[in-house]
Amino acid sequence: MNSYLLTEMTWPEVKDALQTVKLAIIPVGAHEQHGPHMNESCDAVLATQLSNRLAERLYPHVLVTPTVNMGVSIHHINFPGTITLKPETLISILRDMVWSLKQHGIEKFLFLNSHGGNQSTLSVACTTLTHELGVEIFYAKSTASAKNALKEHVQSTLYGHSCEREVSEALYLAPQLVRMDKLEKGDIVEGKWRNLRPGNPLQGTYQYEEMTANGCIGDATKASYEIGEKVVEEALDGLEGSIRKLLDL
Amino acid sequence: MNSYLLTEMTWPEVKDALQTVKLAIIPVGAHEQHGPHMNESCDAVLATQLSNRLAERLYPHVLVTPTVNMGVSIHHINFPGTITLKPETLISILRDMVWSLKQHGIEKFLFLNSHGGNQSTLSVACTTLTHELGVEIFYAKSTASAKNALKEHVQSTLYGHSCEREVSEALYLAPQLVRMDKLEKGDIVEGKWRNLRPGNPLQGTYQYEEMTANGCIGDATKASYEIGEKVVEEALDGLEGSIRKLLDL
Amino acid sequence: MNSYLLTEMTWPEVKDALQTVKLAIIPVGAHEQHGPHMNESCDAVLATQLSNRLAERLYPHVLVTPTVNMGVSIHHINFPGTITLKPETLISILRDMVWSLKQHGIEKFLFLNSHGGNQSTLSVACTTLTHELGVEIFYAKSTASAKNALKEHVQSTLYGHSCEREVSEALYLAPQLVRMDKLEKGDIVEGKWRNLRPGNPLQGTYQYEEMTANGCIGDATKASYEIGEKVVEEALDGLEGSIRKLLDL
Amino acid sequence: MNSYLLTEMTWPEVKDALQTVKLAIIPVGAHEQHGPHMNESCDAVLATQLSNRLAERLYPHVLVTPTVNMGVSIHHINFPGTITLKPETLISILRDMVWSLKQHGIEKFLFLNSHGGNQSTLSVACTTLTHELGVEIFYAKSTASAKNALKEHVQSTLYGHSCEREVSEALYLAPQLVRMDKLEKGDIVEGKWRNLRPGNPLQGTYQYEEMTANGCIGDATKASYEIGEKVVEEALDGLEGSIRKLLDL
Amino acid sequence: MNSYLLTEMTWPEVKDALQTVKLAIIPVGAHEQHGPHMNESCDAVLATQLSNRLAERLYPHVLVTPTVNMGVSIHHINFPGTITLKPETLISILRDMVWSLKQHGIEKFLFLNSHGGNQSTLSVACTTLTHELGVEIFYAKSTASAKNALKEHVQSTLYGHSCEREVSEALYLAPQLVRMDKLEKGDIVEGKWRNLRPGNPLQGTYQYEEMTANGCIGDATKASYEIGEKVVEEALDGLEGSIRKLLDL
Amino acid sequence: MNSYLLTEMTWPEVKDALQTVKLAIIPVGAHEQHGPHMNESCDAVLATQLSNRLAERLYPHVLVTPTVNMGVSIHHINFPGTITLKPETLISILRDMVWSLKQHGIEKFLFLNSHGGNQSTLSVACTTLTHELGVEIFYAKSTASAKNALKEHVQSTLYGHSCEREVSEALYLAPQLVRMDKLEKGDIVEGKWRNLRPGNPLQGTYQYEEMTANGCIGDATKASYEIGEKVVEEALDGLEGSIRKLLDL
Repeated sequence: MNSYLLTEMTWPEVKDALQTVKLAIIPVGAHEQHGPHMNESCDAVLATQLSNRLAERLYPHVLVTPTVNMGVSIHHINFPGTITLKPETLISILRDMVWSLKQHGIEKFLFLNSHGGNQSTLSVACTTLTHELGVEIFYAKSTASAKNALKEHVQSTLYGHSCEREVSEALYLAPQLVRMDKLEKGDIVEGKWRNLRPGNPLQGTYQYEEMTANGCIGDATKASYEIGEKVVEEALDGLEGSIRKLLDL
Repeated sequence: MNSYLLTEMTWPEVKDALQTVKLAIIPVGAHEQHGPHMNESCDAVLATQLSNRLAERLYPHVLVTPTVNMGVSIHHINFPGTITLKPETLISILRDMVWSLKQHGIEKFLFLNSHGGNQSTLSVACTTLTHELGVEIFYAKSTASAKNALKEHVQSTLYGHSCEREVSEALYLAPQLVRMDKLEKGDIVEGKWRNLRPGNPLQGTYQYEEMTANGCIGDATKASYEIGEKVVEEALDGLEGSIRKLLDL
Repeated sequence: MNSYLLTEMTWPEVKDALQTVKLAIIPVGAHEQHGPHMNESCDAVLATQLSNRLAERLYPHVLVTPTVNMGVSIHHINFPGTITLKPETLISILRDMVWSLKQHGIEKFLFLNSHGGNQSTLSVACTTLTHELGVEIFYAKSTASAKNALKEHVQSTLYGHSCEREVSEALYLAPQLVRMDKLEKGDIVEGKWRNLRPGNPLQGTYQYEEMTANGCIGDATKASYEIGEKVVEEALDGLEGSIRKLLDL
Repeated sequence: MNSYLLTEMTWPEVKDALQTVKLAIIPVGAHEQHGPHMNESCDAVLATQLSNRLAERLYPHVLVTPTVNMGVSIHHINFPGTITLKPETLISILRDMVWSLKQHGIEKFLFLNSHGGNQSTLSVACTTLTHELGVEIFYAKSTASAKNALKEHVQSTLYGHSCEREVSEALYLAPQLVRMDKLEKGDIVEGKWRNLRPGNPLQGTYQYEEMTANGCIGDATKASYEIGEKVVEEALDGLEGSIRKLLDL
Repeated sequence: MNSYLLTEMTWPEVKDALQTVKLAIIPVGAHEQHGPHMNESCDAVLATQLSNRLAERLYPHVLVTPTVNMGVSIHHINFPGTITLKPETLISILRDMVWSLKQHGIEKFLFLNSHGGNQSTLSVACTTLTHELGVEIFYAKSTASAKNALKEHVQSTLYGHSCEREVSEALYLAPQLVRMDKLEKGDIVEGKWRNLRPGNPLQGTYQYEEMTANGCIGDATKASYEIGEKVVEEALDGLEGSIRKLLDL
Repeated sequence: MNSYLLTEMTWPEVKDALQTVKLAIIPVGAHEQHGPHMNESCDAVLATQLSNRLAERLYPHVLVTPTVNMGVSIHHINFPGTITLKPETLISILRDMVWSLKQHGIEKFLFLNSHGGNQSTLSVACTTLTHELGVEIFYAKSTASAKNALKEHVQSTLYGHSCEREVSEALYLAPQLVRMDKLEKGDIVEGKWRNLRPGNPLQGTYQYEEMTANGCIGDATKASYEIGEKVVEEALDGLEGSIRKLLDL
């Protein structure tokens, strides 16, 4: 064993691991449409895989918990199969997980999130649970910190969902998620979303079908294992480095 | 594809499947200690596998959703690694799942549960959500209906957790959960639980360590693939039969 | 005074009683239709009477609190007069009662329940409040433990609501509940409930009018004081015995 | 039958009654200390009896529901035996009751309350539930409107709990509540409550033991059946008159 | 500075003030229609001004917090512009404010309320938060204690909203709230409210437009600065006196 | 009147305004320490002033509601005077406001927020309330969109609270908030916050006193009316432009 994955351990093994573990990584994903070329479990699987890789790098100081395999996906609800949690449900799950793990002596947590729609809720959860439970919580959006690789390898100005970035990550981390024979560019629809994307003075809610007819943005046909490797490994470098500083490793 | 597993489908595939699907199976598990010889994800994995097998039998009339991979396990919290959800958290998750799937046209649901500690909460959820959301909900405790096989193959009078039944099921459905070299009988401790087991006039809460020092009951050393096969297949026969009657298949 | 009934005591009397009381019995009933031959308060009255009898046997070690006189009866709501509490309301009432009584030094509780529809909620309440309030809680379904008497005196295969068992109990404990001139057998209607009764692989929610047109099951015309006496006294023996063991009396 | 008491009716009787019933009276009481000379169920019993009498006068236009037999009594919690509900629990109970009765076609409600500590919560419940459930709700503090009788027969300037008024009402409506051999005047203690009684610029919370050592105020030794009769009957006249106007009877 | 107004202070100034401050005044207002002659912020502004004046009198022993500038106004919702909070929202705001101020060492609080519709909710909040947070809370309805001035200067039998009392108070405390050229008497409409006003046996909810077509009651044309001065100053005398007694000043 | 400010209007004026108003601006502020040189109401006042200016530009198509004058400020709670709302309280306030205004026919909303600590909660509120209430909601962080002016006039790399930006905005919009004789640079303390600021791979919670001893960051001594004017007017240009597009003005 070169990483502590709670789902694959017995309690005596967990007991031993707790002697060195200082932080629990909670993978947070989603269950939602990812266009015609990715499975709906995409975010849950990527969050899990990324967490596992990060745990290998930080062994024996961290463990990985079960994955929160659904998230806040109301903006995708009009595509068949999407399941969405209310923000308060997601916070309740995290509260119960953090509380439970604190009973075992863990006091630091990382919510490692692969789904943009969860990010605000995780920020609220972090603020709330830190004070409510007396623990220290960090959170991160999976590969968002891989700025160099993203700048170099992602050309689309509008990307972030079932695009070249996400499909590349999947090809590197979990290729079973991808239908290589179905890869499509985002089929963009005009709408108010243009005025509400990050970088605009206003933000706001819109449904995904108001932006894209096939559920994708960006250009998945440009995805590759190599891009995935670069993005993921740069992100892991950043995450590992930050955690080492915060844990004094 | 000979079963509809929502986690492994794209939205156009889900759209097609919804033309014949009448019922969604929601696997409900737990994350909790299972003694020295089973992974803590045991219940989540068994619920998933059992659901998938049931879906094969009922294809193309049912689909399987993502698994609720944690449950109500407060009675195991004193064993390292256990994570417990509050009953109201579990109900919130199920509410959000049922609501979401109803948006896609599904109006019948089966909570297929592998963890005894969830059973009351699922009963409450069933009552609550049926009326609140205007749907029809069933629930079942995984293999509890395999009465003949259990009578024939399980000798322990006290069993039901990481015992010959559960380990056998795992050997048949998901052998990676089992540490064959660590199999142990339950290391039973005397306590008030004797007066609170099913069959007594009173029921009540006790912690698992008050009943067993190693976290098991029954006798896992008697488990086998063959027992697992008989128990699981008899349970699947019963579940399939009931669903066919209820769905008029 | 040969039993401690909180509703009939003054505070100085309660103060004295608390010197020997170790457990509070909380009677939990319902307000719901009981067919043409029983008052709608049936369950509340039976829970109260049974609790009072049990308190006599365990004097001076227990007291009886006010009765929770409504319960979870949504499955009866389509019969005139039925009132139903949401499960979370019932739990809130019990939380407030247990919290209050703990202020007076009581740390053990028995929810003595006469209504099947409450049972899951009481199980959830037991789990939740035990940990939340740091107390010990037991619960029981009134006369369910009188297995011998029930086997001997109840012939109906489908019984449990305004049937020979319940009417007999009422004739013994509270005859004012019964309209002797209106006694009727259950007027059974076929429906999906056949596949959802205990003993089937699946459980689930159905409305009572889907099962019986007059609101009864079983055969109330076979009820008698003598059957009631046997069922109730056997149940009281069992309950008393269990409590004596659990309280070390 | 000259009044409709839901607890004493069968569903076919309720069905008939609903042809003329326009309003449901919900008796709201409390379970709390009432000094050395009254049972702790005093308020619950008085609310029930007063409701029943009012229902006789308004037969066949009203029915009486089961009694809410506990209330908001946190200010009495330091006296043995008192049980208190949180305000939100009381509102939840009333919400469920009103919702249930609305299913049976009743759209007007009277919360008939015998306990001062409930009054604000009932006001909030009235506002909340009126709009939430689309019904019409009234509420009243039992005999508070008997202004002439109270002025004539109650001399104490500080009264209102287990005093000459309340004991007199009990002697008239439910004499079993009173220990005639234990009647005592309030054993008043000085404290901040003097500045917080009605009529002062400020109001606020204080515990009852800060005001009275024996749990009473006023002078119960002056109570009589005759005073009770005058107070109760004047109150019933007022309540009946108001309801007749509001229901156009 | 001759009063401590938290909104106008820096944290070092607050730190100094806390050396003498024993009580925080929380002004509680509303945002609701006040007829054709007053701004909708009337109650929020009057609560603020009254609090500030009271703080001057009690300097340096009290401070004034930010104003709760909306309240429970559902009975005015059918007049354009009215905003209403649910009672539980108002309680949540007060809970958070009291909790926060307790972190700074303040343990006594006055909810100084200018809006009748808030009064029950404040009573419930007072009871709830006193026990939940371990603090001491008082509450008052602005000028209700100015009994002499009100008796002398207010002739209308039905008054209390945008009437001669309230307009007079505004002319004295915040004349910018008043449209002198629009002053109108209440345009009273007959309705069930006649049977539900204070003093009747029953109370209950009615919408304001059922009572007055222009949103006012009483006679605003009789308002004056002088009446306002007398009412406000008598109320301040009463409030100041009570607080001095309760704080031992 | 050249802007619609709900707090300064009567109901007949609101009724008229509603004929042209399409969007309500809800100013969202905070009450928290702003170092030794700004009042604690800073964010509430700036949100109000900015909203009013924006309303002038968009007259007669928008109105401004009362200000949410407290926010999520738990990270400042250790500085005297700070008041913090829980995220769920802030969402409840906004829910009640949006619901109320929808009764008056308004279906589009802008949460105009001046406090960074509110931003995630507003995002969650936007998602939640959009779907729950069937309205359209936008939100914005006050002057964050004034990218050119900020780039040109703000030199500090760490700024955003009581800094040259915020003090400049106050000098332009509400100079009474500033103590010109107390202006100080942020008194920065080293700590884990360095690894958690925006731009790092991780985010997380830290208390403000872990970052700055005087409660400020940046350099307030460089603030000026002119900078404030440039920042505010550029932000207003952006906000106005976006709203005109979204409202088709």
